[in-house]
Amino acid sequence: MKPIAAPELQTADWLNVDKPISLESLRGKVVLIEAFQMLCPGCVSHGLPQAMRVHRSFNGDDVAVVGLHTVFEHHDAQGTRAALTAFLHEYKIGFPVGIDAPSESGGLPETMARYRMQGTPTLILVDRLGRLRKQKFGMEEDLVLGAEIMSLICEGREAATAAGAA
Amino acid sequence: MKPIAAPELQTADWLNVDKPISLESLRGKVVLIEAFQMLCPGCVSHGLPQAMRVHRSFNGDDVAVVGLHTVFEHHDAQGTRAALTAFLHEYKIGFPVGIDAPSESGGLPETMARYRMQGTPTLILVDRLGRLRKQKFGMEEDLVLGAEIMSLICEGREAATAAGAA
Amino acid sequence: MKPIAAPELQTADWLNVDKPISLESLRGKVVLIEAFQMLCPGCVSHGLPQAMRVHRSFNGDDVAVVGLHTVFEHHDAQGTRAALTAFLHEYKIGFPVGIDAPSESGGLPETMARYRMQGTPTLILVDRLGRLRKQKFGMEEDLVLGAEIMSLICEGREAATAAGAA
Amino acid sequence: MKPIAAPELQTADWLNVDKPISLESLRGKVVLIEAFQMLCPGCVSHGLPQAMRVHRSFNGDDVAVVGLHTVFEHHDAQGTRAALTAFLHEYKIGFPVGIDAPSESGGLPETMARYRMQGTPTLILVDRLGRLRKQKFGMEEDLVLGAEIMSLICEGREAATAAGAA
Repeated sequence: MKPIAAPELQTADWLNVDKPISLESLRGKVVLIEAFQMLCPGCVSHGLPQAMRVHRSFNGDDVAVVGLHTVFEHHDAQGTRAALTAFLHEYKIGFPVGIDAPSESGGLPETMARYRMQGTPTLILVDRLGRLRKQKFGMEEDLVLGAEIMSLICEGREAATAAGAA
Repeated sequence: MKPIAAPELQTADWLNVDKPISLESLRGKVVLIEAFQMLCPGCVSHGLPQAMRVHRSFNGDDVAVVGLHTVFEHHDAQGTRAALTAFLHEYKIGFPVGIDAPSESGGLPETMARYRMQGTPTLILVDRLGRLRKQKFGMEEDLVLGAEIMSLICEGREAATAAGAA
Repeated sequence: MKPIAAPELQTADWLNVDKPISLESLRGKVVLIEAFQMLCPGCVSHGLPQAMRVHRSFNGDDVAVVGLHTVFEHHDAQGTRAALTAFLHEYKIGFPVGIDAPSESGGLPETMARYRMQGTPTLILVDRLGRLRKQKFGMEEDLVLGAEIMSLICEGREAATAAGAA
Repeated sequence: MKPIAAPELQTADWLNVDKPISLESLRGKVVLIEAFQMLCPGCVSHGLPQAMRVHRSFNGDDVAVVGLHTVFEHHDAQGTRAALTAFLHEYKIGFPVGIDAPSESGGLPETMARYRMQGTPTLILVDRLGRLRKQKFGMEEDLVLGAEIMSLICEGREAATAAGAA
């Protein structure tokens, strides 16, 4: 199996962070991308709380958690920066959240289209080398996700160990 | 104990219903009013699902369930009819929802102020005679709420029984 | 609909109470009987916690909660008074619990057989006049159960009201 | 940090397995030991279901899940093989379960004493080399546990990688 490079994030704006974030800038860390919509019940009840647990449980030097607001419906209700800001405040979501760049043609937003996501929530894991290692629409168990993230963290250690040994 | 008359609803608009609803028009039924904000986590996780269970479990001839969108913060994010419409659609909320009339002075919306609500969610029960019988800020257990609603339903039966007996 | 009289409890022993309890002795109260086995997962996770909530939420003058240990399998594991005593202690179950009288023929215990229960947990409601008003194998929603219990409580009030009016 | 060797299991009997299991015989695998009592509510609601998820989610070549019935109270209720057999059957627990050897002096059972466990449930992780790497009384989050197990799995891989590189 040979994983592809994870497509770069295409964003219109960012919240909870001073300047835009790119996958390029996170190289060396495992990255969890939580693609969501603020009016998506499964995102609110499951996807986002899980991303918050990952953000709280792992060392920020090893794992970066990034939200991606992929609005593909109800644009007038959830398409404004003000609405998203209020939402993040009320749900106490502290990790950086990018707003997926709207499509010029009116279809799915840019990042969502590049990843061919099927809907929200979508959970994505990118490894230390910037490769796409997991993409799942819907729910994932915490036990499985914890193991998968640690497996990607370990890959870096193994590489270091191998290099040191050699 | 002598309950007061429940203050009439002051609304700017209604969703999920053809024409405005008043407590006056619901006289003869027990009324559950669920005051909420669409960006209030406790409303989304507890208050609204409970109101939906009441709506599903009781006979509509006995109990009317009414939502009341009492926006007192984040007006730009949750203050539009479009935002609320999208929210009700996504969360599959089918009972009538009134939009609490904004205050002219910029304070709490009108109905919220009249009831002196402390925040959202607030659960209100009005009896068949239009009297305020319960008002609770925060969570209530299903077992207790089910009993309280039935107790108010029974009051009508008792009155009928007493009248019939006499 | 004309409800039948609830069959009397047939018990070998009682815990959490000084002397045996009969339905006869509870006449005038609504009675909730929770038939369970200590090694039945659905009883432990749902039926018994619900019975404990009823015991805590309703006035003991109106509602009596009674457990009934209906052992129909694993007799050597859960058939002793010592095992049941330890179980009630660990799960902090404080309401009276009767041990259903074992069948002489080795089949279902006596009370279980009389009620033709399908298994555990089984929830039973007996009204103030000793009539069987509900029997359900499996789970019941708290909202529904709270309403049903209150409806039976009210019947007594209605009778009193009717009598008083007349 | 230098972890100690995990004390060997001292057992009187085993269920769900043909012959006794020792940590020695599991060398090379990560081992999760779930110490429990069948009448311990926290074991039933949390510890054992989590151990079952680990058993289901990880490859048996990497991770062995072992239950340990550490009876330190209510011996007459939960101290028999028959009672434990019925319990494992009802809760559909399929991994091997050892019965901690009773103390000759009447105190804590042998393995429980050797590990100086504080109560049940206690979760223990042993690495591929037989060293004690985690011991926790009470609850652990699935996300954290999944990561910890995978970290121990990876240690073997790293060692192999280092060896291969060297």
